[in-house]
Amino acid sequence: MELRQLGEWGLIHRIQTSFTSPKRSNVVLGLGDDAAVIRISSGKSLLLTTDLLVEGVDFELPLCSYKQIGYKALAVNLSDIAAMGGLPRYFLVSLAIPSRTPVSSVDQLYRGMQGLAKQFKVALIGGDTSSSPQGFFLNLVVAGETEPSRLVRRAGARVGDQIFVTGTLGDSRAGLEILKSQAAGRKMRTNTKMAGKRSARSRPLTMLIRRHLYPMPRVREGRLLATKGVASAMMDLSDGLASDLRRLCEASRVGALIDTALLPISPSLSRYAGLKARRPSEYALKGGEDFELLFTVSPSRIARLIELQQGGQMKATRIGVIRPQREGISLIAQNGEKKKLNAQGYEHFRSK
Amino acid sequence: MELRQLGEWGLIHRIQTSFTSPKRSNVVLGLGDDAAVIRISSGKSLLLTTDLLVEGVDFELPLCSYKQIGYKALAVNLSDIAAMGGLPRYFLVSLAIPSRTPVSSVDQLYRGMQGLAKQFKVALIGGDTSSSPQGFFLNLVVAGETEPSRLVRRAGARVGDQIFVTGTLGDSRAGLEILKSQAAGRKMRTNTKMAGKRSARSRPLTMLIRRHLYPMPRVREGRLLATKGVASAMMDLSDGLASDLRRLCEASRVGALIDTALLPISPSLSRYAGLKARRPSEYALKGGEDFELLFTVSPSRIARLIELQQGGQMKATRIGVIRPQREGISLIAQNGEKKKLNAQGYEHFRSK
Repeated sequence: MELRQLGEWGLIHRIQTSFTSPKRSNVVLGLGDDAAVIRISSGKSLLLTTDLLVEGVDFELPLCSYKQIGYKALAVNLSDIAAMGGLPRYFLVSLAIPSRTPVSSVDQLYRGMQGLAKQFKVALIGGDTSSSPQGFFLNLVVAGETEPSRLVRRAGARVGDQIFVTGTLGDSRAGLEILKSQAAGRKMRTNTKMAGKRSARSRPLTMLIRRHLYPMPRVREGRLLATKGVASAMMDLSDGLASDLRRLCEASRVGALIDTALLPISPSLSRYAGLKARRPSEYALKGGEDFELLFTVSPSRIARLIELQQGGQMKATRIGVIRPQREGISLIAQNGEKKKLNAQGYEHFRSK
Repeated sequence: MELRQLGEWGLIHRIQTSFTSPKRSNVVLGLGDDAAVIRISSGKSLLLTTDLLVEGVDFELPLCSYKQIGYKALAVNLSDIAAMGGLPRYFLVSLAIPSRTPVSSVDQLYRGMQGLAKQFKVALIGGDTSSSPQGFFLNLVVAGETEPSRLVRRAGARVGDQIFVTGTLGDSRAGLEILKSQAAGRKMRTNTKMAGKRSARSRPLTMLIRRHLYPMPRVREGRLLATKGVASAMMDLSDGLASDLRRLCEASRVGALIDTALLPISPSLSRYAGLKARRPSEYALKGGEDFELLFTVSPSRIARLIELQQGGQMKATRIGVIRPQREGISLIAQNGEKKKLNAQGYEHFRSK
């Protein structure tokens, strides 16, 4: 059997079940959440997360610059720490890159990380550099911390909890489509309604591209949800809502009912999807790399979330409710019909 | 300018000097040693190290198996923790691998790590998996711990300190040569003396190959040298003694005088070098991937080291002495002549 038949989740499951690790009482969470959690004292836990970006898989060099790759590599790791309710503190960078790469490109790569590192006060403390015969590979590790009592896992959602997301969904996927289409030199199809309104048309496109290239890790929001005791379960959206929600539900051993009409769609995505004659909800459900937070809130804590929202401290949108596991994961479509939600997010190795 | 002109150390220096990190009082050591060190309480420091292995650069798949790659990837990271006098505790594995790879190969990769993980009681707590369009990339992160007072850095060697190494040097490089020569289908040149003594000839070769494929991280030795307060400076030998000693000396702002006659050479390497009509000391000085510990001991602490050696707790060989920085790094050759030691270890990106 080859990896493409087993698939990414199959491989991860295989490693989880076959690798024997020594029992360590201070490993709070090992494989299977957004970050590993190690209790280092009664008041502090260490969070460790790692993310590998591969040229031709996670990014295409003609489509994005080295600076954008650097930014995104750090952003997605910060997002994993945010998803645990933690504070990112340190990071390490491993780099495999062809030796004919201009030094200025590597400078740009680090410049992309520099802005975010400053904004979130994370320190570069280590790394490794290697030449690569072909292709560019970038692996980051971020270490963060939280209080053991504040930790928010994927497991923790209970039947009756409300399901929320930060920000809007699907923008990143649309942004990637636009980048690919621009790169292919194809002009965007315009309909008569849009014809001649160049600036009105290009603004939403720019916003969608920005959302793909510069996702903003929701560290502040994740921290608030954790410290105020609002979220019962949380993860970040990297592979698409349909796919990631399934993982949260599996970890929590629950089902879910999502209402399509509630999905937060940006005006830019609405316009773009209209131009492409597609439903924005398709992007919201299946598009990956939003790096928004998906979280659940028990009925008794909803008031706290409303307080945070009314105080202007964060924005979140209710998209559904946690249901018993036997009901599976369902979706109320725009026409009011209820149907099963298929998880069709991005998965490595799978041949499509 | 391209990376191959700047070289690996040039790139690392460029990142160190240009990247601005927030001042964090608990970052004891950032970039530039074997591992990063973060003080997490008055009695405990966290060690973090990362190492990236690239197919075609760090290993050749026809020359070694997936199991061997897995073993070595973990071993070299454990070696970095050993070099700080720390105890390895946890590790994370990032993997980029073509989707047509057999699942059994990945099983073997983890099997290679499993043995070492058990032996050194390190727990697999996280990772990331990605498909790769071409080539196999493996990045490991190991987290370890030590007491802040026990930490041994590269900086710390003083003029008059004696220089030691664990184990024997140069075996790994010879082992790699043999593997390459075997793969090329070339028969080892035999001289008349060796002819017909097949078993006597193949034993040393097997030992050298083993030393290349299965380096033993010196965790126990590093820990002893740290907790007994023996070593004033320490690092592990990954790029070759000549190159690594230079880095220890730069960090400590000292020079060194090495005596070629004192370099610990295994009987296997002596025989092999003899067959190849080369000096074993060449392998010892320039060969990389020994993953032995290089450390210095102040005159007042030599007695403690001797105690450890006589008690059978560890083996180490004195190879020279720390000299003032202005004298540079010199070598007493076999013929008694003193000459400058050139650092010609392995460096990424450099075109040779």
